[in-house]
Amino acid sequence: MTARQALSLGTFLIATSIVWACRSASAAPAGERLVRIAELEIDPQQLAPYKAALREEIETALRVEPGVLALCAVSLKDHPEQIRLFETYKDEASYRSHLQSPHFKKYKALTQTMVRSLHLIETEPILLGSKPM
Amino acid sequence: MTARQALSLGTFLIATSIVWACRSASAAPAGERLVRIAELEIDPQQLAPYKAALREEIETALRVEPGVLALCAVSLKDHPEQIRLFETYKDEASYRSHLQSPHFKKYKALTQTMVRSLHLIETEPILLGSKPM
Repeated sequence: MTARQALSLGTFLIATSIVWACRSASAAPAGERLVRIAELEIDPQQLAPYKAALREEIETALRVEPGVLALCAVSLKDHPEQIRLFETYKDEASYRSHLQSPHFKKYKALTQTMVRSLHLIETEPILLGSKPM
Repeated sequence: MTARQALSLGTFLIATSIVWACRSASAAPAGERLVRIAELEIDPQQLAPYKAALREEIETALRVEPGVLALCAVSLKDHPEQIRLFETYKDEASYRSHLQSPHFKKYKALTQTMVRSLHLIETEPILLGSKPM
């Protein structure tokens, strides 16, 4: 195999595996997935440090926990102090493990005085379709 | 390069590109993304056909629209007729294009008599972290 052939093979394999990753994502069965919605109201004076703590928690969880599949955080345009989290875990065990993780506990401790209210909503997935963002 | 070396290279490239896809997803800048939350109440008598129409719309949109990055649909455990959609588009133009797509128009027409109420919430992304599901 020449260097050029090896390069072509490599390029083909990269393209194939990315397409595969996207396809497997978009066709995900919603079966065992645990999806939780969290609705939070944050002290407006502490919004910036709250977002920083939240970002750090999300980045760490996605990097070190295989069972944390998606953590999407947004604020409402008309009410920036209102935060919505859309959380997808591989299964119930992954969710329980996440709650015990050091980064989640750190986030909870850091944001304790920033969060005015927290409403957790349990859900049944219908279809979870996503591609790499 | 031997066949064994080529195989090793291929395996390495597949692994690398999948990790890359995941990392790029989990580290996504929330900048241009458009995230919309939809809160719907469905006629309980028509929940099954509504879900079927929704699934078809989501699967088609993800397959044919490059700018549709995620469409996640769940029902609330305590109120199965309450549906939440968490929708992520590449940008504003992708969202507008989606609204004009034939599959979205078909879904709207099909479900017109099934949807009792629809509340759309505009958001500002904070961090959108996800891996292939």
